[in-house]
Formats: sequence, structure tokens, C-alpha cells
Amino acid sequence: MTKIKNDLFLKALKGETVTRPPVWMMRQAGRFLPEFRAIREKYDFFTRCRTPELASEITVQPYRRFGMDAAILFSDILVIPQAMNIEVEMKAGIGPWLPKPIRSQKDVDEVIVPDVKVELGYVMEAIKATKELLNNEIPLIGFAGSPWTILCYCVQGQGSKTFDKAKEFCFTQPIAAHTLLQKITDTTIAYLKEKVKAGVNAVQIFDSWGGMLSPVDYQEFSWKYINQIIEALKDEAPVIAFGKGCWFALEEMSNSNASALGVDWTITPKMARKLTNNSITLQGNFDPARLLSPPSEIKKMVKIMIDEFGKDKYIVNLGHGILPNIPLENAKAFIDAVKEYN
Amino acid sequence: MTKIKNDLFLKALKGETVTRPPVWMMRQAGRFLPEFRAIREKYDFFTRCRTPELASEITVQPYRRFGMDAAILFSDILVIPQAMNIEVEMKAGIGPWLPKPIRSQKDVDEVIVPDVKVELGYVMEAIKATKELLNNEIPLIGFAGSPWTILCYCVQGQGSKTFDKAKEFCFTQPIAAHTLLQKITDTTIAYLKEKVKAGVNAVQIFDSWGGMLSPVDYQEFSWKYINQIIEALKDEAPVIAFGKGCWFALEEMSNSNASALGVDWTITPKMARKLTNNSITLQGNFDPARLLSPPSEIKKMVKIMIDEFGKDKYIVNLGHGILPNIPLENAKAFIDAVKEYN
Repeated sequence: MTKIKNDLFLKALKGETVTRPPVWMMRQAGRFLPEFRAIREKYDFFTRCRTPELASEITVQPYRRFGMDAAILFSDILVIPQAMNIEVEMKAGIGPWLPKPIRSQKDVDEVIVPDVKVELGYVMEAIKATKELLNNEIPLIGFAGSPWTILCYCVQGQGSKTFDKAKEFCFTQPIAAHTLLQKITDTTIAYLKEKVKAGVNAVQIFDSWGGMLSPVDYQEFSWKYINQIIEALKDEAPVIAFGKGCWFALEEMSNSNASALGVDWTITPKMARKLTNNSITLQGNFDPARLLSPPSEIKKMVKIMIDEFGKDKYIVNLGHGILPNIPLENAKAFIDAVKEYN
Repeated sequence: MTKIKNDLFLKALKGETVTRPPVWMMRQAGRFLPEFRAIREKYDFFTRCRTPELASEITVQPYRRFGMDAAILFSDILVIPQAMNIEVEMKAGIGPWLPKPIRSQKDVDEVIVPDVKVELGYVMEAIKATKELLNNEIPLIGFAGSPWTILCYCVQGQGSKTFDKAKEFCFTQPIAAHTLLQKITDTTIAYLKEKVKAGVNAVQIFDSWGGMLSPVDYQEFSWKYINQIIEALKDEAPVIAFGKGCWFALEEMSNSNASALGVDWTITPKMARKLTNNSITLQGNFDPARLLSPPSEIKKMVKIMIDEFGKDKYIVNLGHGILPNIPLENAKAFIDAVKEYN
């Protein structure tokens, strides 16, 4: 693999000493950027995901404007269920919408484990196009949703505050639930391996809804499958596991073969280091809503955050995706504060 | 005050040794009961809250059916902003709806601290009517939302996954936010004192959205005000503080003058005891969605939960409100499992 000019991010994933920590922002390729909104006006969501020229252009937009230390491929976690024969739409004002949610063993039986090279070939093309645009300046991150998070949408049929239907499915039909989770896991492993072959330098697993589960249920329905993915990918590329609200599992996660763990903003850096025994690279955890504070305040808070996490074994990020209503100068203050850190 | 026949709940709040822990369920007075739904068909939400005969009847319904060890007054946390001159509606399919959300210092200036005896007299009447129905058999709990949680609705104008507008208000107009929080706090203190005079045996503060804040912001915008309420009430009645998602503040909370702390289902009993230094009564924390499991499984899980928390300094409860779709026999299994514990 060709050498990446700015390798701060890759160094941090290896736990190597750096002059300053690297920085990127979850959901940076998207809705808060005017140049992204211009593209959105012309093309619908899945067209943007499926057209390599569009996906690659969107991916590099935040880098061009702010100079982050890593890019993340513009895509969506729901391309996986789509490829598995589950219909997924993106509805304005609602978000993901699955007209035929999975509710029975029979529904699960109809779900396929696809040939990802065929069904998700457009993602691999988007990666190749992005690598050309990036010209080895910074690393490119590929991602997938955790099997549990994907199940949440497949069963609930849309976003939810509680994902009660998804939980009901798992608690009343555990055999069907585990069959579905394994199918999603198998597809995800094949998908991420292809992404690495296509050129991504690291992968991140987003467990957006793991924090809806009790610690015991998290082990059974989420972590077990995330860990399968980590084990399958560990020799191909560094894996970052991000579980929103999953502070309770951090200790176990730190004993896995993940290269880094993402943490949300409800944990102090000190507690995050303590629960992970100072043994692993951490990524996070600025409250996305705190990017609404004045830029000067953002800069102060970022400096404190880096001081508290420490500059090594650390990747500066938000604690969840950037909000659509963040002013550009505020996002810039966040990135600049990291670059000015010493 | 007359002696309560079943004083398990009050004993647990004092940390006294008990034969078995007491049990009640958050949101037990309401939507999962057919006898409640029969009343709901005839009377709208705020009529039910404002009519002492209805509120008291709804309050005792779950006790009649299942024999919990405490009743909680049927009411709503949003009666407070209503009394403060903020319009609040309850819309079918949406939930709370505030047509004129608070967004500026001027809006805050128009909010009043009311005479709760006048504006919320109907709540005191409901308490008296309930006490008569309960006939000193079990204790009655009164409640209020935390000032932060009330602010969330007042500013956002409705429920939300992120309460981003509420957070934006606090982060960009902190002076206005603190003025509003103090007005809510002053009203809440007067309100809860009146409730105690009217006959409730304990009060619970629900901080449903405290877990949306970072630990630093939680101190500034939520805990500071909850603690004022605890300090003002501590000599009048035992105070239970329940912060959903507020595990990160448990240690500090355990050093307050609260009599008990509520915990949600995303923390293990062991970790909850550790973070509170084994020093305070804990209440919780069964995943409400786990009440969808078969009754025999529920009973096993409840027994394990009590074993892990320990029977003393412990109040069995859910980790959040009961869901509307819980079968009656499942709720019964939950209560029975506690009564059968030895």
C-alpha cells in the first residue's frame, strides 16, 4: 500500500507517539456543508450513495474546506440490508423507512447473504474514485453499522426513541433474531473485507443503538457480533468500534482486537481511560450540540478535552454525528483547535 | 402522620433492614391497564389530571390489581410549566406540544413563578382524594420533573431524540437559560412542599433528559437545580432522584441528601453499587422492554436482579416507565417475583 502523506490518524490507531492528535468528525461528509446541500438538491439519497462520482466528491468536500486528518466514505449503514433483499427507502422528514419490516422467522428466512462484490460493487467503485481524489494525502475510513443497529431498523421499520419493536423481536423470538444477526454479520464481514481491498485504510463499526440494551442483553445481541467482525478484520485493517451509550461495555471492548474505541460525550475522558485501563486508543467525544457555542469557547473546550484524554492514543472527534445546523466557522474552530494544540 | 400499614417502601428509603425489597413500577398508573384506558376514552389528558376523582381513581388502579408497595399520583411533569404561564397541549400521536416555545430572554421574562396553592390546587385535592382511597395501606409518592427536563420541553416545544434546540438555547443564551431554570426550580420546590403537606409520603424527581448532557454540562444545567430541590425538601419528605442516562453523576448524587437514587437498565447492579459507594438506597432497574419476555423468564431475571442489588437499601422498579403494550400477566409476574423473594 502506498504511503499516506499525513499519517497522524494511522499512527494514533497504532498507539504511536504523535506531535498532536489527529482529528475528523463523524458525519463530516454531509448535511452541514453548503457544497453538499447543493448536490443534495439535484440527486436523491441513494443516487448519491450509488454514483461513485458523487459519493467521492461528497467524501472529499470537508477535507478540502477544513483539512481534517482523515476522510470517511460518504455512504449509509442501510446499504447492507438493501443488498440483503430488504427494501429500504429514505423519506423526507422521516428518515429511513422500511415498508416490509422483519417480524417473524419466515421474514428472516427470506433475507439473503448476498455476493457483496455484485450487490455493493458501487461502494467499491466509490472508494477507488475517492482514493484518486485524495491522492494519498490522508487516510480513508470505510464503515458499517453494527449488526444490532441494522436489526433495529430492519425490525422497527424506521427510526425510534426506544426501538421497542426491535427489542420485543429479540426478547420473544431470540432464535429468529440470532439468525438475522448472523446473516447481517456475515454480510458485513464480506463487505468490509472488500472495502479494504478497494482501498480504505481503516474501518469503523457504528453501534448507534447498542446503548438501548442492558449490559447482559448487549453482550448477547450486539457485542458478540461486533467482536466477530473485529476478529475477521483485524489482520486486514485497523477497526474502530463506536458504541453510542455503551460505556458499560468499554472494559470488555478494550480487551478485544479493536484498534480504537469511540466514546460519546456522556463520559469524562478520565473515566473513559479508567474503564479501558489506559490500554487502547480512544476516539471522541465532543458533544455535537456544543459546536453551537461561540468559536472561542469551542477552542477552549477542545484544548481541555485533549489535555484530559492526553495527546497520544487519541483521535479527536465528536461524540456522535455533526448536526446539520452547525455554522461553518464553528466546525472550523473545532478542527483548528486541534491543529493548534501543542 | 398516621402510620402506613405496609411500610416496606419507607423502610427501604431509610436504609432499614427489610424481609424483602418493596416494589412499584414507574408509569404504573396508566396506559398499560385496561381500566385506565376505559377512563381515557371518556376524558382527555388534562381533564384526568385536573379532576381529583379521576386522578385518584387512576392512581389506585394498579394497586388494586397487583398490590404494589407504593402508589404514585397520576399527574404529569408538564403541569408545572402550565402553571407558569406556558401553554402546554397533549396531542394525539405527538405527545406534549407547546405552541409558543421559549427561545429568548424576553420569553423567559414572561414566565411567572405562580402561587402553586392556587394554580395547582387541583393536584393537592387529588392527593387528598387518593389518601382516602388508599386508607393508609401503602405510601403515596408525589413527583416533579427536573428543571432541566422541564426546560427541554419548554424550549424544544415537543419531545425530541436530541433536544438540540434546548441545548442550543443553554449553550448560546446561558443567562436566559439559568433564569428559566431558577424559576422552574422555585416553582417546583413550592409545589413539592405543598404536595407533602397534602399527604404524599415521598417525592421523586424525574430527570428524563439529563443523560443528553455531558458530565460538565449536567452539573451546570441539571444537577445544580435538582440539588436545590433536594436541600429544600430533605426535612419534609424522602426524596428520590432519578436521572435517566445519568450514571456518570451517580457518585456525586450519592453524596447528596437524597434518600434514594433511581437508575436505568444500562448499568449493572454491581457498578451502580460501586459508583454510589454502597452508601444509598437504589431504585430500579429492569429494562421495560424485558417485560415482553415470557412471565417465567421475567421471574428468573427479577430474582437475579434482587440478588445482585441485595435486598436492603433497594427498591425494585423498572429502569424507566412501563410500556403501553405490556401484557397484564407479565406485569403481574414482575410484582409477584418480588413478593415471592426470600
